[in-house]
Amino acid sequence: MDAGLVQLLERAFHPRAIAVVGASNNPMSFGYHFLRHLTRYGFAGNIYPVNPGEESVQGFPAYHRLSDIPGPIDYVVCCIPAQLIPDLLRECRTRDVRVAHLFTGRLTETGRAQAHELEAEILCQARIHDVRLIGPNCMGLYHPGQGISFGYDLPIEPGPVGGLFQSGGASGEFVRYGALRGLRFSKVISYGNALDLDESDFLDYLSQDTNTTVIAAYIEGVKEGRRFLRSLKNAASTKPVVALKGGKGGAGAARACFSHTASLTGSSEVWETAVRQAGAVPAETLEDLIDLVVAFRFLPPTTGKRVGVVGGGGGKSVLSADECESAGLELPPLPQKAREELKAIAPDLWDWLGNPADRSIMQGAPIDTGKILKVMAPLPEFDFIIANITEDAPFGQEGMTRLLQTEADDFIEVWRKRTKPLAVVLGAGELGGQELQDWRWRLLAEQRQRLVAAGIPVYASVTRAARSLSRLVDYYRRRAALSRTDRALAGW
Amino acid sequence: MDAGLVQLLERAFHPRAIAVVGASNNPMSFGYHFLRHLTRYGFAGNIYPVNPGEESVQGFPAYHRLSDIPGPIDYVVCCIPAQLIPDLLRECRTRDVRVAHLFTGRLTETGRAQAHELEAEILCQARIHDVRLIGPNCMGLYHPGQGISFGYDLPIEPGPVGGLFQSGGASGEFVRYGALRGLRFSKVISYGNALDLDESDFLDYLSQDTNTTVIAAYIEGVKEGRRFLRSLKNAASTKPVVALKGGKGGAGAARACFSHTASLTGSSEVWETAVRQAGAVPAETLEDLIDLVVAFRFLPPTTGKRVGVVGGGGGKSVLSADECESAGLELPPLPQKAREELKAIAPDLWDWLGNPADRSIMQGAPIDTGKILKVMAPLPEFDFIIANITEDAPFGQEGMTRLLQTEADDFIEVWRKRTKPLAVVLGAGELGGQELQDWRWRLLAEQRQRLVAAGIPVYASVTRAARSLSRLVDYYRRRAALSRTDRALAGW
Repeated sequence: MDAGLVQLLERAFHPRAIAVVGASNNPMSFGYHFLRHLTRYGFAGNIYPVNPGEESVQGFPAYHRLSDIPGPIDYVVCCIPAQLIPDLLRECRTRDVRVAHLFTGRLTETGRAQAHELEAEILCQARIHDVRLIGPNCMGLYHPGQGISFGYDLPIEPGPVGGLFQSGGASGEFVRYGALRGLRFSKVISYGNALDLDESDFLDYLSQDTNTTVIAAYIEGVKEGRRFLRSLKNAASTKPVVALKGGKGGAGAARACFSHTASLTGSSEVWETAVRQAGAVPAETLEDLIDLVVAFRFLPPTTGKRVGVVGGGGGKSVLSADECESAGLELPPLPQKAREELKAIAPDLWDWLGNPADRSIMQGAPIDTGKILKVMAPLPEFDFIIANITEDAPFGQEGMTRLLQTEADDFIEVWRKRTKPLAVVLGAGELGGQELQDWRWRLLAEQRQRLVAAGIPVYASVTRAARSLSRLVDYYRRRAALSRTDRALAGW
Repeated sequence: MDAGLVQLLERAFHPRAIAVVGASNNPMSFGYHFLRHLTRYGFAGNIYPVNPGEESVQGFPAYHRLSDIPGPIDYVVCCIPAQLIPDLLRECRTRDVRVAHLFTGRLTETGRAQAHELEAEILCQARIHDVRLIGPNCMGLYHPGQGISFGYDLPIEPGPVGGLFQSGGASGEFVRYGALRGLRFSKVISYGNALDLDESDFLDYLSQDTNTTVIAAYIEGVKEGRRFLRSLKNAASTKPVVALKGGKGGAGAARACFSHTASLTGSSEVWETAVRQAGAVPAETLEDLIDLVVAFRFLPPTTGKRVGVVGGGGGKSVLSADECESAGLELPPLPQKAREELKAIAPDLWDWLGNPADRSIMQGAPIDTGKILKVMAPLPEFDFIIANITEDAPFGQEGMTRLLQTEADDFIEVWRKRTKPLAVVLGAGELGGQELQDWRWRLLAEQRQRLVAAGIPVYASVTRAARSLSRLVDYYRRRAALSRTDRALAGW
């Protein structure tokens, strides 16, 4: 990536001061929210609301124009109507603002000729005045490490997941649902119409960002195919990149894409092949994107496909085996060594227990999910373990609480010892208000929170766990093959 | 189905009295739980605990043997060790018990020769003494209308969904997770090893059961292929049947299946083709089974594939279009008539709004998801509507509460008017204990509860909604074609 652009973005993303142009006291306006986020997330630099009609906004002295601001400005958030943007860009030049986030929308995505002309004019002015643009029609930046956010109630503490999202809503959903799974974020950029800075620029930026170890991308349209593939390949060579395409379908999806970010869609087959060839991982849905990022964030590089499945009743064990095998994983039988160990622990069950290890047959026996996990995890016959939490047991509250507490304790212990990569399956019911009060669903939620807090990848279904693990393995196998090729070529 | 068997099962499932053999005061034993369920779910007949070592069990006088019981007995739940079952069956004969549920397991599924012999002996005694068996190795019956249950905290009130499940755990999960979606149940039968009564018998029974309008099945092994297909075809000709196969995969799944219910697996392709040819609907996972049953339970017969999508931000609209099209649905553009209506309501947006109708562009405009739903629902250009709830909005608690409340109100109003079949998408996050307290997740849960209570099918993702709707349409198209064939043949 162009070192100058990195420097520009670094300055903009670690700003001494931010001006919110169109900042407002009206809680129905985005100029209100973007300003409010800065205080709520603890932005430490100077905050300058700009609004010609106000003397103060949310307790800050307001400035009528950008040029009235006394100190340096490193980043501008623009929430004013589109026709005022060319003037704002001229002002940016005078204050040495080099990067502006244009929240402002209703441009090309409306499909209207006039809006299209105005967008072209905005780009032209940005070039003339040497201002790089994020957007228009986007939510901009979530950078918790700097106290910058595009939404309410997102995690305050930062983490290693970076993201570039052409949709603001999808970026928010990614952060909100990802946070439930234990993800924390370095920088997530919502970039909308990509009039100036585009997916390739943000990929380049996040690939060189040392605070980012995994990249998630949601892209509706690619501006320059070749450049994008180069950026994607480069990013994927530095860290795992998981990419979701919006607008894969037919006419309906194509229309939706245009009216959202004025993007032109392409075929989904071409996309997937290209992403895979670049060394990145294609995701199928937003949920799948989160599932994959969870795997790459929490699991070590693994190249083996042999899985041990523990816990869950008989039906769940059968369906777990089905889903693992259909995802391309293998379920080796329990090796003799494990049988001998089990013979000592559970003389009544050792010949019957297998892989998957059905928990329901352990009722009343001196063995449980945790114990068999501890037998299986160290075995070289398994590359990783999928552990089903017991979601249903024929006990009342006290017995089931003890059971789940013990299972979670054991899972966390094995995870902490790093004996073997582990994923836990714990269903997420579609709870209604009433169930939030119910001891059973509360118990499941509390144990999930403990597992997630321990850094364990937790999936709501074995299908999702198995599919994520299998693609993680594929990814590291391809990388291993690549680095073998690299080493071989290096010998010449 | 054999009328005699129907009669037998009707009597057993509407018993004047139930004997729980092996009933216990020890809360770690299933004999404790099966008895307890009868009182908790309000079984109105006589309850007879049988236990040679107790004078009373849970406040009921206990009987040492079945033959000591004074009154008639129509159903026996057996929780005693397997080797005692042949004697019990002899006693059943003397008391004219014709159906027994054998919870008792550790039989053929253990893979042990001795257990296999004992199971054969049990079947032999059952035939001799004219007792039909449910099980062994199963949870038996959940029949809320009669106060009979196999688990805690399942719905007390009955409903029209019937089920036959070879796995007890899967049957419990189906009821528990299905209940969250608004499903209520006629009879759900967990039948384990299917030593005597099998999947064909239960299909036959549920197909003639007038309280059952949809049937869900989870089957690991089919005892007699031809008979099963006949039963399935017959059941599917009376009501929708959704069937999930356990043990579709390779060696791991086959081993798991055998050690669970001693079932031998078959190929998944053969299964799916056969199920479809019989006129039933194959499900892919337990989650998918519930999703399909929700669709068949709440939606009317629909044979059109043209969907209108309303609500959700731009990214969600794009991804919704993708998922609908990839599920085989069509998204027609907004017709001129709708545009004219929108022109009057939202002069700034009418040319830009489309199908999907992106909610995020309506910010501040005199239109919202509910209004556009009311414009689109009556149009003949759409066969049904998928409505995305706004899960994220740039407001604080008060504004977002008002917004979601209004959306749910509007969805419920349109649903109640039956203008058009409707499915709502409302994400279910993997909540931890902390999020159960959080106003945002509580708000989503409360609105979900309202929608579900109104009888609306609610899905956690558009992928799941679209796939379920598409298969519902396929089902009714096939049925329409069949009945046309029938009519044509009737003319000859």
